[in-house]
Amino acid sequence: MTTLVLGSASPARLRTLQRAGLTPYVVVSHVDEDAVLAAALLSYGALEPDEVPLVLARAKAEAVAALLDGDAAAGVPDDRPADALVLGCDSVLELDGEVHGKPADAAEASARWRRMRGRSGVLHTGHWVIDLREDGGGATLGAVASTTVHFADVTDAEIDAYVATGEPLSVAGAFTTDGLGGAFVAGIEGDHHNVVGLSLPLLRTLLADCGVLWTTLW
Amino acid sequence: MTTLVLGSASPARLRTLQRAGLTPYVVVSHVDEDAVLAAALLSYGALEPDEVPLVLARAKAEAVAALLDGDAAAGVPDDRPADALVLGCDSVLELDGEVHGKPADAAEASARWRRMRGRSGVLHTGHWVIDLREDGGGATLGAVASTTVHFADVTDAEIDAYVATGEPLSVAGAFTTDGLGGAFVAGIEGDHHNVVGLSLPLLRTLLADCGVLWTTLW
Repeated sequence: MTTLVLGSASPARLRTLQRAGLTPYVVVSHVDEDAVLAAALLSYGALEPDEVPLVLARAKAEAVAALLDGDAAAGVPDDRPADALVLGCDSVLELDGEVHGKPADAAEASARWRRMRGRSGVLHTGHWVIDLREDGGGATLGAVASTTVHFADVTDAEIDAYVATGEPLSVAGAFTTDGLGGAFVAGIEGDHHNVVGLSLPLLRTLLADCGVLWTTLW
Repeated sequence: MTTLVLGSASPARLRTLQRAGLTPYVVVSHVDEDAVLAAALLSYGALEPDEVPLVLARAKAEAVAALLDGDAAAGVPDDRPADALVLGCDSVLELDGEVHGKPADAAEASARWRRMRGRSGVLHTGHWVIDLREDGGGATLGAVASTTVHFADVTDAEIDAYVATGEPLSVAGAFTTDGLGGAFVAGIEGDHHNVVGLSLPLLRTLLADCGVLWTTLW
């Protein structure tokens, strides 16, 4: 039986897949993101904002594939799936041409919201799939989904209350659409699951490229 | 304490509000939708696609307000909130200028998906708020949020599998974005919560018009 292996510790990504009817197996990669980006800079030069999450998604998927595939599968339980499709993901928010991950602290989250309100950013999520199935084609492929996010013109009082909840500190771009921040995003253009961290329609097409029909994973 | 009263039996609407940090009190209206629309036709003439859900949302909110406010509050528990803001909602999908609610049966759901795939529709949700707070301004006001939905070019096999799950039969437009249908919507333009049945950013502005700051409802 084909199993999707989610190479991410993000509860939002897991929940997104589960709500869509999938039952992914989670293996968390421990990738040194700074080292991966430093190596990419040496190999390719400066990355565009939408290339950053793709490079990181690939590194995460390859790390998890090595864990599942290797002789030394330390840290992976014995019940690991035999017929695995590994998925790595990474998300960043682009604002004014700069890339933002999670804010460092409450002061940074607050400052970002004062800059973002009433304006737009682009949430890029990189996806990378590695086909480890015994009878699979061995594909390794990825793509980026980009969703424009229009932030509501929230008040100072709303920003203070939102930052005080702690939610913006744990997410790329300092906002959620599926949590307390839901009313603070006026609208989007693109796939909204992508904003949460994983584009379901893009994953569907990547899996189709591997010869896997989405509904067979239900 | 101000309480938002959700006048809707929709679990998706309740979940949307709860995930955004609100704890609504649910009172289900029992509005005869056909009678409301027939009366509106007599009063205003033929309704535009985006007017239909607003008329129904208002009728639902007024029915719930009458229940809460009236002498004969039959069927409403004794612990009903004193300081209530009532919200009524209704959603329809517009496709080719026609309005669609829930499909009648599996055959209709299947036929609709064969027509929708690879194309776009507009999900309109009407919202109506009635301020019943003792010290409130007594406002009664509403608005429609419209979100364009781009459907993925799903295969016949995917449509058959999706319809067989029964999910499309219970929702306006025969699709969800927050359930099994998540991978079958390629992207949207607008608020994605609106597609689920309740626009959080629009509700935030309607409540602000009533003098209620969103974050005070957390």
